Amino acid sequence: MWTLNSPLTPQCCDQPKNTNVRISLPAVCFVWQLAMIILFGFFIRYNAESDVHWKQENKNISRSDIENDFYFRYPSFQDVHVMIFVGFGFLMTFLKRYSFGAVGFNLLIAAFGLQWALLMQGWFHSLDPMDGKIKIGVESMINADFCVASCLIAYGAVLGKVSPVQLMVMTLFGVTLYAVEEYIILNLIHARDAGGSMVIHTFGAYYGLSISWMLYRPNLDKRLNGSVYHSDVFAMIGTLFLWMFWPSFNSAISYHGDGQHRAAINTYLSLAATVLTTVAISSLSQKAGKLDMVHIQNSTLAGGVAVGTAAEFMLMPYGSLIVGFCCGIISTLGYIYLTPFMEKYLKIQDTCGIHNLHAMPGVIGGIVGAITAAAASEGVYGKEGLKTVFDFTGKWENMLPTQQGGHQAAGLCVALCFGIGGGILVGCVLRLPIWGDAPDDHCFDDELYWEVPEDEESIPPILEYDNHIRNQAG
Amino acid sequence: MWTLNSPLTPQCCDQPKNTNVRISLPAVCFVWQLAMIILFGFFIRYNAESDVHWKQENKNISRSDIENDFYFRYPSFQDVHVMIFVGFGFLMTFLKRYSFGAVGFNLLIAAFGLQWALLMQGWFHSLDPMDGKIKIGVESMINADFCVASCLIAYGAVLGKVSPVQLMVMTLFGVTLYAVEEYIILNLIHARDAGGSMVIHTFGAYYGLSISWMLYRPNLDKRLNGSVYHSDVFAMIGTLFLWMFWPSFNSAISYHGDGQHRAAINTYLSLAATVLTTVAISSLSQKAGKLDMVHIQNSTLAGGVAVGTAAEFMLMPYGSLIVGFCCGIISTLGYIYLTPFMEKYLKIQDTCGIHNLHAMPGVIGGIVGAITAAAASEGVYGKEGLKTVFDFTGKWENMLPTQQGGHQAAGLCVALCFGIGGGILVGCVLRLPIWGDAPDDHCFDDELYWEVPEDEESIPPILEYDNHIRNQAG
Amino acid sequence: MWTLNSPLTPQCCDQPKNTNVRISLPAVCFVWQLAMIILFGFFIRYNAESDVHWKQENKNISRSDIENDFYFRYPSFQDVHVMIFVGFGFLMTFLKRYSFGAVGFNLLIAAFGLQWALLMQGWFHSLDPMDGKIKIGVESMINADFCVASCLIAYGAVLGKVSPVQLMVMTLFGVTLYAVEEYIILNLIHARDAGGSMVIHTFGAYYGLSISWMLYRPNLDKRLNGSVYHSDVFAMIGTLFLWMFWPSFNSAISYHGDGQHRAAINTYLSLAATVLTTVAISSLSQKAGKLDMVHIQNSTLAGGVAVGTAAEFMLMPYGSLIVGFCCGIISTLGYIYLTPFMEKYLKIQDTCGIHNLHAMPGVIGGIVGAITAAAASEGVYGKEGLKTVFDFTGKWENMLPTQQGGHQAAGLCVALCFGIGGGILVGCVLRLPIWGDAPDDHCFDDELYWEVPEDEESIPPILEYDNHIRNQAG
Repeated sequence: MWTLNSPLTPQCCDQPKNTNVRISLPAVCFVWQLAMIILFGFFIRYNAESDVHWKQENKNISRSDIENDFYFRYPSFQDVHVMIFVGFGFLMTFLKRYSFGAVGFNLLIAAFGLQWALLMQGWFHSLDPMDGKIKIGVESMINADFCVASCLIAYGAVLGKVSPVQLMVMTLFGVTLYAVEEYIILNLIHARDAGGSMVIHTFGAYYGLSISWMLYRPNLDKRLNGSVYHSDVFAMIGTLFLWMFWPSFNSAISYHGDGQHRAAINTYLSLAATVLTTVAISSLSQKAGKLDMVHIQNSTLAGGVAVGTAAEFMLMPYGSLIVGFCCGIISTLGYIYLTPFMEKYLKIQDTCGIHNLHAMPGVIGGIVGAITAAAASEGVYGKEGLKTVFDFTGKWENMLPTQQGGHQAAGLCVALCFGIGGGILVGCVLRLPIWGDAPDDHCFDDELYWEVPEDEESIPPILEYDNHIRNQAG
Repeated sequence: MWTLNSPLTPQCCDQPKNTNVRISLPAVCFVWQLAMIILFGFFIRYNAESDVHWKQENKNISRSDIENDFYFRYPSFQDVHVMIFVGFGFLMTFLKRYSFGAVGFNLLIAAFGLQWALLMQGWFHSLDPMDGKIKIGVESMINADFCVASCLIAYGAVLGKVSPVQLMVMTLFGVTLYAVEEYIILNLIHARDAGGSMVIHTFGAYYGLSISWMLYRPNLDKRLNGSVYHSDVFAMIGTLFLWMFWPSFNSAISYHGDGQHRAAINTYLSLAATVLTTVAISSLSQKAGKLDMVHIQNSTLAGGVAVGTAAEFMLMPYGSLIVGFCCGIISTLGYIYLTPFMEKYLKIQDTCGIHNLHAMPGVIGGIVGAITAAAASEGVYGKEGLKTVFDFTGKWENMLPTQQGGHQAAGLCVALCFGIGGGILVGCVLRLPIWGDAPDDHCFDDELYWEVPEDEESIPPILEYDNHIRNQAG
Repeated sequence: MWTLNSPLTPQCCDQPKNTNVRISLPAVCFVWQLAMIILFGFFIRYNAESDVHWKQENKNISRSDIENDFYFRYPSFQDVHVMIFVGFGFLMTFLKRYSFGAVGFNLLIAAFGLQWALLMQGWFHSLDPMDGKIKIGVESMINADFCVASCLIAYGAVLGKVSPVQLMVMTLFGVTLYAVEEYIILNLIHARDAGGSMVIHTFGAYYGLSISWMLYRPNLDKRLNGSVYHSDVFAMIGTLFLWMFWPSFNSAISYHGDGQHRAAINTYLSLAATVLTTVAISSLSQKAGKLDMVHIQNSTLAGGVAVGTAAEFMLMPYGSLIVGFCCGIISTLGYIYLTPFMEKYLKIQDTCGIHNLHAMPGVIGGIVGAITAAAASEGVYGKEGLKTVFDFTGKWENMLPTQQGGHQAAGLCVALCFGIGGGILVGCVLRLPIWGDAPDDHCFDDELYWEVPEDEESIPPILEYDNHIRNQAG
């Protein structure tokens, strides 16, 4: 029996932690899901392109069925969907005994988050003034997945240290903050951010890091904070699906035609360059020149983050390579030097190293976006091109690229503020002793929240029968 | 040596079971594949959109190349294809020593089944009256994959208890029954079933359960009927690819434009809601509030099954959430209470719990479809919309939505009858002692049909050289 | 300490091998990536469909946005991308202790190779004569992935026996040779090769086999040259993603409309037939009729290779089945008889058996292509159809199908010569003792180039706390 006097007792609180979530987890799931049903009933309807009247209207204007936005964006949506659930989920399976929590809680909070995101983003972006309803379509689903991505990034910082109930609370607030921040950055400030370097990655990473800072565990037991051979291979599934589908992520909501086309090319190139510099730095950093799986699993993705904002701009193929080149270096160096430093001196425990994979590359992405926008010229883009790419329409008709660069920079600042500020506030909420989180010496362990099966070694050898078969055949 | 007097001898038969399939398996594979080649030679040709004359005809009517059905459906086809081979295959790898059989036999029977399905479905649906040939295209491939899905669902009930030869026989009959049942439901009864809640899931599940009932093993050894840590993570690969691509499954053969668009949205939402209620019930059902991987792997998918029939209808976003909400609860409760009950009292051994994942949600899906169809009104759909969605054309021109509701219900009954009746018949055939199935005490073991490699623990530690390298570097 | 006198010393060289790549690997990565940036800066620009001016031009000719080549090819591109990184990467994880090297080095050389391929193929195929720039778009990305595939095939032959630096050198030369060979076969000889049976598979396989022949290791230690249970399941991830997406591979660069449509159908069918004959031969070859995972992982894919060249021709559905039928047999027999023979008598050590999966099926694919082309008639294709399928335009306007058959055969010979000749030359370079490759007794071991985590068995059991929880709940 584990008591107050046991040396296992965490010193930061007065009573043993109770990780039983049998009341709180079902309660949160049921209540929130019921709330979603009611709110969806009041607010959410199909948009014109997914409504049954579309086909008839299409005939009237003799437009082809293939021009439904579904065919422009659905393949990209499915790729993004894979990134959210398999990509983020499996990337976090690298811990030796937290694979269930990684992939299972990832599914849970993503499934909740996307519903709440449809509502929050809908209220800000696609409320139909005629009937007060939110109209959803394939682009809404992509945006909901994007919004959820920011919460999953935040999960990376606290992986193994929080309860599923805390994760649900973190996601509720995260999605809410995201929707506000996104509205400010994209609509009020009129910054462009196709791949979400600022809106998704910068915000999500600093949100998670601030929460982790608020939940600092001085006596964290690190025995289970590491990988085994096969868990590293599982994590590579996540890495590769993120890496491969990132061109779809950055191009998913770009404008039709050359916008999506160019965003995919830029991301494809940037990621390729990142791999080489990541390998180089990883090898350089070890005495014997050996590679570290943590770097390969994470830093190879930094180029995709950093090219997010500028993906649809005329960044040029070599520009994408340069961005990827730098990010591979910076991200890998971050894993080597910055993560230990942050834990030791800043008291920020970052399980997955999201500061290196999302925070720094996200900020770089925002800066690259600002510079590329400020440097845009009519010579390269053409008059119409500038309008299309930077959406210089309506009240922004007379905006100049240099001004746009300033707005981009302002957007980056907003993302940073929302991430840090929001994270600190939510971190305070999550410090309440009611959420069922683990004691310091039982972090990174699936045993707390999962029925874990017996160990592999106990498989009974059934050899007799096999010998029988061999005899039969022989 | 394993003899008649050994306590291992199954009591239900007089002689030791011979699991050597060295004659029967190759014979079945060769003969059936040769039959396929001959039948394809006589019957199967490219349809107009995959024939070489298409491009010229297209030019003549100045239609764009992009309006080839390939571009409407191929991305969905590939997603469905992933569900069939990776989704179903890996979902069944959860057993500690049957991963080869899960993913390998899944590939075998799917590869055979899809060829036979092209023929069977072709004879019923796409026989060209001009030349007596079946014309295939991308939609035929999707339908063949759908047909195969029903057999793979049935495999889930008997996983680990049948030989590959039995699986091939089961698939041959399963595909045949499916094609007849599908023709009756979709063409004769004129029910709609875009995502196959009735045609695929209800039929497939009851087909498998009836076979499992006929093959009941009273002395089944359960030592290997469970998971280990890593096999559960492998199974999550299957779960996630099914979960993510289900919107493509339900929208793959909907009508172009808003039909596909709406089906994807409905499925996306239903699945999200299912996750939350599955987690809630799973946590509630355990003393300490811990989650059970079996529920997360399976019940989270129930919402996709149940929204199949109604996916292309105007179910409304909140309607989809409600369907998902209920199915998560019912499916998880099924795993907790119904599966043990069925084994104990009904003598139905259901390895993967397909009754909870496919049978019950499939029936719910059929009922939801009937209600939604009966409740369809011109106010919501418009006159043209009703025609398009419910295909009120030709001899069905004057049909009313309420009538359609009745037809939907009739379709569900046909699927149930074919599943149960067909399963009992095929189960009788599979009881013949010629198929090389395992004895009761060697089920769930890859050793019987696979060359299994040595165990992990026997990897020799090669440390000397590694020390050498460290010295070199130091 | 491992010294000259140790029995572990390889006898083929005078000094202990130094596998420290801390200088060479980072140097190669940095220098080559910098070179890429500079060359991309000079040469590579967006093509018309990914340039910002496209939208405006499109409006001028009132063409729909959906007719951007992006929407024709991007879904196929993403499928090909998955094959390159997850398919090839995971297919090679079957070794018990080389999964990091399989999936990690696969990522490294693919990421480098695709950049160099864009340049090399660009110079030969898409140099704009107006401004001397290479114009890239989605088709260029597919072609770059195709080019990389040939180098990854070659990697299969030397898996576990070369250093990452050698792999980079092998890829540099491989891509270069590929681009020249492809130019000769497709442009000068005017052979057709949509799925690359000749250009990709035949060339890549013989390139790898020749290198492996040059690097023959007489004292190769085979203790680690085998699988464990879970590594075989990981490899099935690779197999399945290759198998499922092969229709996209063979149709990715076919002509729009029926070309892509037909190529996908042919590949889908061929692969299905291959599975059945592979299973049949694998079962027949074992005393007890058991299946061998090596065959299922590899030979089931042979049908996709062999149908590559003829995929877009009017091969007919039964024709595809016949090709798949034969390849499953030949490939599996190759694993049983040919691979041991080649190692023993020809001194070619082929880790993954690429001779059976790529070389023989590739050659068969070339022959099938030649025969199908020679047999093409105006009766089947129509006059316009022949022009479209075989590109009888420009200086090839008066070509006859029989001539085309001859050209196809010539193309196959060129691929063979480039593969064998190039492999021998590059093999000579790779024999230099400067590349950091492993000694004969340390092949197939991740320890040499990776920081490998502790073993699974050392996970500390943390049971006390768990008991505490159970008590709490009870």
